[in-house]
Amino acid sequence: MQRYARPLQRLIDALECLPGIGPKSAQRLALHLLRIPAEQAGDLAQAILDARSGMRQCEVCFNLAESPRCPICDDRSRNQEIITVVADVRDLMALDNAGDYRGTYHVLDGLISPMDGIGPEQLHIRELLKRLEDSTVKEVILATNPTVEGDATALYLARLIKPLGLRVSRIALGLPVGGDLDYADQMTIMRALEGRTPM
Amino acid sequence: MQRYARPLQRLIDALECLPGIGPKSAQRLALHLLRIPAEQAGDLAQAILDARSGMRQCEVCFNLAESPRCPICDDRSRNQEIITVVADVRDLMALDNAGDYRGTYHVLDGLISPMDGIGPEQLHIRELLKRLEDSTVKEVILATNPTVEGDATALYLARLIKPLGLRVSRIALGLPVGGDLDYADQMTIMRALEGRTPM
Repeated sequence: MQRYARPLQRLIDALECLPGIGPKSAQRLALHLLRIPAEQAGDLAQAILDARSGMRQCEVCFNLAESPRCPICDDRSRNQEIITVVADVRDLMALDNAGDYRGTYHVLDGLISPMDGIGPEQLHIRELLKRLEDSTVKEVILATNPTVEGDATALYLARLIKPLGLRVSRIALGLPVGGDLDYADQMTIMRALEGRTPM
Repeated sequence: MQRYARPLQRLIDALECLPGIGPKSAQRLALHLLRIPAEQAGDLAQAILDARSGMRQCEVCFNLAESPRCPICDDRSRNQEIITVVADVRDLMALDNAGDYRGTYHVLDGLISPMDGIGPEQLHIRELLKRLEDSTVKEVILATNPTVEGDATALYLARLIKPLGLRVSRIALGLPVGGDLDYADQMTIMRALEGRTPM
């Protein structure tokens, strides 16, 4: 039985495909899009189309970019001597939004995961090694997630990069700020102890 | 400082304007829209544009419609003898999604609210009275929210409609299913007692 007008139903269906948007939210968003000025709704539609057509991967670091190089690689005030290696653009954004880091990045576009048939050759590792040869990089920070795949990828990269005579480091594992020892899992506590810093 | 590629930033900004979408969600949604097949992202953009250009108000009940009449008014299997009056399309959807009701609706497009300068003449009350004169309606259910404005609007409508010799009713006020007397507010408990039903 058709309950809603078809264009409305199609809009609700399209919104429901988005992550974290359930039926109720999709309905609320659809009605919102119908209520706001047509211009504003058109802006969103256009922004989606523009983002799809106008975006590519940065030729240096594989971040999302409009021009051949992404804004971060283009920013000469950034420290070109440090590269932070991340699995994907989302992780890059999380790190960069944290605010303090002023070096560059390298997006692998995934993690080594034999279970999913993803080996080193599917990731942008060759390009990373090329960057390390060509440039003035002094340090590589491995900022993959502390998961099985993230750890394996970091280990693999460390073994490749160390022989080049560069400093290689891994982001710290430990308790989150404001965390509670009583609620932390054993692995986290072990890593926090191992990674203790002198004070 | 420009951190993201411009089309990405514009998409994030446009998504952030939606209700319930914060900066983090907007970023996640934007990256999702860049990752999915271009076709699927284009579908969403097109659905927004189509909904804006292809939708109007039902000429009978002011629900959202694609043709002159909305799917509910067009559905002859629905009981045309009962009209449920609601403030807006969202309330209509909530009632209709509940499932059991098979009558028709009338959307007021707001509630009487002197504070906001909204009087009866700004709402679709004239059209409701016209429907009641012309048609075979036997009962009107006032399903505005149990708020000051909703109650005032219901009272106003009841006074107008009763003299026409129709049954007029108000949706029940009481405890929600699964609710707890201990946690209910005094007004709700009072209304639940007042509205007690014989068993």
